[in-house]
Amino acid sequence: MATITIIGTGTMANAIGGVLANGGNSVAYVAHEQIGTARIEGDIVVLAVPYPALDGIVSAHADQLAGKTVVDITNPLDFTTFDSLVVPAGSSAAAELQAKLPASAVLKAFNTTFAATLVSGKVGDLTTTVLIAGDDAEAKQALKSAIEAGGLTAIDAGSLKRAHELEALGFLQLTLAAGEKISWTGGFGIIR
Amino acid sequence: MATITIIGTGTMANAIGGVLANGGNSVAYVAHEQIGTARIEGDIVVLAVPYPALDGIVSAHADQLAGKTVVDITNPLDFTTFDSLVVPAGSSAAAELQAKLPASAVLKAFNTTFAATLVSGKVGDLTTTVLIAGDDAEAKQALKSAIEAGGLTAIDAGSLKRAHELEALGFLQLTLAAGEKISWTGGFGIIR
Repeated sequence: MATITIIGTGTMANAIGGVLANGGNSVAYVAHEQIGTARIEGDIVVLAVPYPALDGIVSAHADQLAGKTVVDITNPLDFTTFDSLVVPAGSSAAAELQAKLPASAVLKAFNTTFAATLVSGKVGDLTTTVLIAGDDAEAKQALKSAIEAGGLTAIDAGSLKRAHELEALGFLQLTLAAGEKISWTGGFGIIR
Repeated sequence: MATITIIGTGTMANAIGGVLANGGNSVAYVAHEQIGTARIEGDIVVLAVPYPALDGIVSAHADQLAGKTVVDITNPLDFTTFDSLVVPAGSSAAAELQAKLPASAVLKAFNTTFAATLVSGKVGDLTTTVLIAGDDAEAKQALKSAIEAGGLTAIDAGSLKRAHELEALGFLQLTLAAGEKISWTGGFGIIR
């Protein structure tokens, strides 16, 4: 069982919190308006906020995040064009975050799973699979266990470099849904 | 019905040729050793070769490929490290190929479907889905129809810029299979 703080109270925050609470993990929430004043507890902190909100969390809470696992779920799209990401080519939001939080174990996860597939636990007939990338093997294993306890599948997708590919996948999936090629309850399922 | 030439006679060449022939399309093959001497016919030419072989085809056959649809299926991995692609960050093998073949309609396709899933037509219980990216809508529609006639699903995944994301997805899928997180008969299925 892990002690988890979720920053954010939106659709993704609730969907992720629901999975982790179902797994018997201890889950607390910090609302957006509490950023800067809340005390961030727990072993794992999920930043369930949009990409532009990351910097404010880093500024306010970098010290409290030191020594913790920090989970970045963002898809850093340029939402004005829906045609590119706003992070440098070849990099990722997660790699940028790790550079700003050198004393934390940053993981990329939950950016390739639509909220509805976390809530239902299914993508079509498949169990929803969360892909995790990061450089800290112990942190990845702890998050994987917490997710699996909640009834989903989790796969260690490799080092934090793979966050680039996970963000490309998340971006592609968003463009397919926005273009009505897939639904917001569907997307990429993983067959092992 | 489309007239299709497949350059290459390997596993992917045969798997793609099988799908397209099943759909009643006219399919001819050009073997690797015929590159430079063969006459390339057909409306659609599938370059079912590894990434390093593309330049030789361009050198030998750019004139014959003018006016045709050229399908790039490559995953331009650095196979010595299995940790990055060899194309510039933010670009793609398909975008590079389009720049070298300005008079052809270059499409990215078949790089996210393992050969076994093309042969069986299934990823798990799902119908195998081919994702297509390219800037020529008519060329995409013709390839989509040829694939669908062969019993698979095909999705227009957007402009040729999306080849970057398709190559990231293909790369990720290859690393997951090489790392035994998924099998070579599995991978990413698409639920609509």
